[in-house]
This record gives sequence, C-alpha cells and structure tokens, in this order.
Amino acid sequence: MSILTTLNWRYATKRMTGGIVPQEKVDTILEAIRLSASSLGLQPFNVIVIDNPELKSKIQPTAYNQPQIVESSHLLIFAAWDNVTKEKVDTYMAQIASERGVSVESLAGFRANFEGILNRSAEENYQWAARQAYIALGTGLVAAASEGVDATPMEGFNPAALDELLGLKEKGLRSVLLMPLGYRDVEKDFLASAKKVRRSKEDFFIHL
Amino acid sequence: MSILTTLNWRYATKRMTGGIVPQEKVDTILEAIRLSASSLGLQPFNVIVIDNPELKSKIQPTAYNQPQIVESSHLLIFAAWDNVTKEKVDTYMAQIASERGVSVESLAGFRANFEGILNRSAEENYQWAARQAYIALGTGLVAAASEGVDATPMEGFNPAALDELLGLKEKGLRSVLLMPLGYRDVEKDFLASAKKVRRSKEDFFIHL
Repeated sequence: MSILTTLNWRYATKRMTGGIVPQEKVDTILEAIRLSASSLGLQPFNVIVIDNPELKSKIQPTAYNQPQIVESSHLLIFAAWDNVTKEKVDTYMAQIASERGVSVESLAGFRANFEGILNRSAEENYQWAARQAYIALGTGLVAAASEGVDATPMEGFNPAALDELLGLKEKGLRSVLLMPLGYRDVEKDFLASAKKVRRSKEDFFIHL
Repeated sequence: MSILTTLNWRYATKRMTGGIVPQEKVDTILEAIRLSASSLGLQPFNVIVIDNPELKSKIQPTAYNQPQIVESSHLLIFAAWDNVTKEKVDTYMAQIASERGVSVESLAGFRANFEGILNRSAEENYQWAARQAYIALGTGLVAAASEGVDATPMEGFNPAALDELLGLKEKGLRSVLLMPLGYRDVEKDFLASAKKVRRSKEDFFIHL
C-alpha cells in the first residue's frame, strides 16, 4: 500500500468495535514509534501501553468519556519527561558511546548541543519534550494505518487527572497525547464514511 | 518496503549531495504532509517549499550555516499560524460544509470545540499550532523515507531571523521546523554509516 493510500485510509476514528489487534501488529506500531525521529535523538518521553479493560475504564472519565478509550484494543499514552536533566543526558551519551564503540569523550562536540537545554527551565524542557512526542505520534499514526489498524490521535483529556490516576508525576512524566488502537465501527462512526477534508494545496503550500 | 525497514533506513542526514529529487517524489512527500493528522483537522500551519538555490543560500546563515540547507534539493519550512482566529475557523467550517454537502449549521456541535481555542491567547494558539506541525513533520519524514529520499528534521535555526527574511510575520506565520529533502552524501556524512541509537524497549515502554 503506498504512503498516500495509507494516509487516505486513516482518519481519527470516533467509534471502535472492541476487536483485538494482534500482538504482532501492536509490536510493529510500537517499534515504529520507538524508531521515530526526535531532536538530537534524545527521545525525551515514554509510551505507556494499556490493554487492561479495567484500567481503560478508569481512564475514560479523564478523557471526557470518549468511547474509543474502552472500545480500543490497546491504549497508548505519550508522556513527556517533566524536565531534561544532566543525568538523562549522561545516560544517553553513555548509550551512544557503548553502541557505536566510541569513547564518551569523543562525543563532547555533540554533547555541547545539550548545554543550552540543561540551562532552560523545567517547563521549557517539558514543552520541548512534548513536541518530540508529537513527531512520534505522527510516525505512529502512519505505522498503524500501514498495518490496517485504526487509531485516534487525542489531545482532548485532562492531563493532570490522568497523571494522578497513573502516578506519572512520581515517574517524572506528564501525559501529552493519547492514541487508542483498534478497529473502526463503520455502523456507529459517521466519520468512517465522511469525506476527508484538507486545506487545498494552493492554500497550504507556499512556493518561494 | 515495510514501515520498519523504512524507518531503519532513514536518519537525520547531515550532508547531502546536491542531487535533485524528482518532482513526482516531492509531490508525494508534500501530499503526505497535507494529509497528515492535525487536531480537529484544522491544519493551523503552512508549508513553504523552496528550491531556488539563491534563496537557500540566503537562508543558510539563519540556520547556523548547516550545509544541508544548500545541499538539499528542496527545503521545506513548517510555519505555524501566529494565532487561531474566528475567520480561520469560519473558513474551515464553510469548507467542511461544502465538501461534505452539509449545512454549516449542522456543524454547530463540532464548531463548539473551537470556542475554548478562540478564547486563548495568540501565544497559546501559536504553541498549539506548532505542535500540529510536528505531527506533520513526523508524517513527512516517513513519506520521504518511503520514497527513498533523505530528509533532516531541524529545530536548530533562528526563527525570528528566518521570519524576517521571508516576510512570514506579514503572512501571520512563525517558522517552527525546517526539513531539507535530498540525498545523503555517504562520503562526507559520518552519520550515514553510524548505528542508529534508540532507547531500549524496556526503558521506553511502560506496560500498565
């Protein structure tokens, strides 16, 4: 399936059937998210994977009771680091050095990119980390569609309530985005047959 | 090529050959970006497409003289709306009504989602718009790789200087991300043969 066929097939699914997505497909989608680009390669966020129906039911009220939360097969939560610390950066440098077989010292030039980041406020770094999660969401949406799996990108939830419910603050995380995975319910979801609306090329692109 | 093969092939290309990407491939990448998901479908950003070598040379100093700016075939600039206005939302509602053959009045429930947005500050709306551009960047990176085209996601530039150079403020836009498209120079780019480093599954995913 071409990338454009894939993207035309997908849409923000409003109702799902409750059908279970095979583990192999979930694994592919998760791996795509893990491989996604992020600034300086840091990946300053985590992805929480939930397939427990009881937990999904508890989460639903924090997301305005949207039905996809419980009708999904798996619920993904993108949660950004609440700060970028020296420890996190050091861990990353050590990992690069180890995996590429070079010394940490040889990475000094690359590490210098993090100096400005380490001098920013926690809130600035959280906002930056959240943006990186959006890149991964974009990657994950393409991956899901390429596997024939429906997904819904969701900003509409109460992050503070969800963080409290899942104890994310204690983990140094703040929830940013939800992404239920499952299968569209074409009977109940009016959007399943609605024409995709996008700004025209003439309006959206500026050629200079 | 599977999505994972595609994602393992891509990397943030540091040096490009100057080779020209065929228009058909550029068109596919741009269309993927136009089809990308965005919150409420609003697409509150524009994509600026530059293939003029002189203009790329003028832009290069605003991006810390990174060589990909001038070694790319096409330079894409993701520029977010500096605010979300009632006029923009009304235009969007009219477009949905027209394309789906329904009345604007029938969209009242959907339009209600925009009330809170229209009451936010311009800065809040710009930040939100910028996040949507990151989803599109994620989509565009997958699309480029699926076409065998290299790309570099770039936050490292001076947005104020670039906005000034291109007159974006007058267009109600603020530059957020750059994405040069082209072909990796395997001789000059040490990253072309470097192992891709990603956080381990155990560290990156949290199963609840």
